[in-house]
Amino acid sequence: MDILLTGRWADDDECEVWRAALQAALPGARWTVDRGEAVPAWPRTIEAAVVANPPPGRLQGLPRLRLIQSLWAGVDRLLADQTLPVDVPIARMVDPAMNAAMAETALWAVLMLQRGFHHYAAQQRAGLWRQRPQRRADEVAVTVLGCGQMGAAAARRLAAQGFRVRGWRATPGRPPEGFEGIEVHAGPAALPALLADSDIVVNLLPLTPATRGLIDARFLAALPPGAALVNLARGAHGVEADLLAALDAGRLDHAVLDVFTQEPLPAGHPFWRHPRVTLLPHVAALTDARSAAAVVAANLQALAEGRPIAHRVDRARGY
Amino acid sequence: MDILLTGRWADDDECEVWRAALQAALPGARWTVDRGEAVPAWPRTIEAAVVANPPPGRLQGLPRLRLIQSLWAGVDRLLADQTLPVDVPIARMVDPAMNAAMAETALWAVLMLQRGFHHYAAQQRAGLWRQRPQRRADEVAVTVLGCGQMGAAAARRLAAQGFRVRGWRATPGRPPEGFEGIEVHAGPAALPALLADSDIVVNLLPLTPATRGLIDARFLAALPPGAALVNLARGAHGVEADLLAALDAGRLDHAVLDVFTQEPLPAGHPFWRHPRVTLLPHVAALTDARSAAAVVAANLQALAEGRPIAHRVDRARGY
Repeated sequence: MDILLTGRWADDDECEVWRAALQAALPGARWTVDRGEAVPAWPRTIEAAVVANPPPGRLQGLPRLRLIQSLWAGVDRLLADQTLPVDVPIARMVDPAMNAAMAETALWAVLMLQRGFHHYAAQQRAGLWRQRPQRRADEVAVTVLGCGQMGAAAARRLAAQGFRVRGWRATPGRPPEGFEGIEVHAGPAALPALLADSDIVVNLLPLTPATRGLIDARFLAALPPGAALVNLARGAHGVEADLLAALDAGRLDHAVLDVFTQEPLPAGHPFWRHPRVTLLPHVAALTDARSAAAVVAANLQALAEGRPIAHRVDRARGY
Repeated sequence: MDILLTGRWADDDECEVWRAALQAALPGARWTVDRGEAVPAWPRTIEAAVVANPPPGRLQGLPRLRLIQSLWAGVDRLLADQTLPVDVPIARMVDPAMNAAMAETALWAVLMLQRGFHHYAAQQRAGLWRQRPQRRADEVAVTVLGCGQMGAAAARRLAAQGFRVRGWRATPGRPPEGFEGIEVHAGPAALPALLADSDIVVNLLPLTPATRGLIDARFLAALPPGAALVNLARGAHGVEADLLAALDAGRLDHAVLDVFTQEPLPAGHPFWRHPRVTLLPHVAALTDARSAAAVVAANLQALAEGRPIAHRVDRARGY
């Protein structure tokens, strides 16, 4: 099978890591690697594209294209490409190793917020030795926004530690997988009461028209004083000016932010030095080339054999 | 029953919190509270003492004393009192809520070290946006020193996250409870090979003659370059000058330190501002007065009814 690898890479090394991992996982395939040619002219025999948020237009002129397989879990940027072939199925990356990494980050952040280790970090910088009240996990209500595979992985680990965990998703539907034994709420109407009873909110939503801008002034005002936010999904889920206002006012105790409306976060942005912000450079869950290549290989094998494609994107829902 | 409550308290409030919790848990008991009288003269009818590291000499002149119940898990300071009645049983605090708190701290610290969140904190202070390599949990070997209830609670939670967990204890014996399915090593001879294969060491040992000063230059040199230490047990388990040398040389990537040979850690001590140290003010597991009072009540009830005392200290072993 002829396959195109295209994306927006941090550097040539990143592209090479992926090419090598994919070639090792699919030794029989013929690969065309997008080197950023000004006028792309791909072989017309290409049947699948493996993509990492390529610039718009890179997937045109492929008459035999039958699958667009994303290397990243979030496809909001990919779907924004107006030139994307309308009738070719798209698959998201759903990688158990990536779900585990995301759940680790969520668990680390929630333990830090529960036990006040961020306050102890500030005390260390100030040379202050003072014990603060200790909260038991079952005294802390954690709301996980997003009931997909990442939300489920995080919710299960948090529940296993004894936190009071609840899931929330933007739209109702069948009970989500992985939330067995965990309360799940749905839709905007359920949010105010849920937030009022939340000590920590962990955002793992997909970015869609229904979730963009969700974490705004009204959302933040619904949280009890002293609550905390962990945003591991997309910067555009929040309104950064509203978040900053809630942090400045101290209504929100702390925010752990891995994602921003502009990345890298510009120098001088107030989040960088805010005492109530723990800032991560979009590392909550890096895609692991080894395990992700195996996921891609399985889907391309399914395509070749006419079996169903896993993790197909519903373009109407946006994920 | 007549009971003496005595200890070295942070302030009068702390003493009062304990008195109230114990009185609520044991409504029928008659309490004598040590207010620091210069010449203590306790009722000779006292049968039990509930103690929080009292100054030496406070448990003399109690002819009917049948039990010394510690409110703290570590009894090294209590046993150092040369005037302690030799034939009265001593019980340690073993509180499930405290074990859970200790396991939370261990898990938070290990996740931080695995994923490099301490490096990202330094990057945030420097205004640096850079992604670092991501380690899977199963690529990280964690050695838990100490196979008591706290070691078991931490080891089980770490193993559940997928870390390669091994236990170590100072002296061989029956397989420790709670380590089912987890490799356990014993004795000084087993240490060099175990440390050479450890990315993170979590110390939860009791402080005894066999464990005092264990984490010295030789111990630290046995670890691979870039390893990390989490000390949640006692400052005297380590040789602070040796630890500082390993951190200064960068042989040790990082240390999370909750305990010190002198507490509060003196102002100006190099640990306060060391870039490779995360410093906590002895808060890894605070005793929760509510749950600990219930543990005390159960033991005093056993004493009154002639049943065996739980969690008896072996004075020869030192814990």
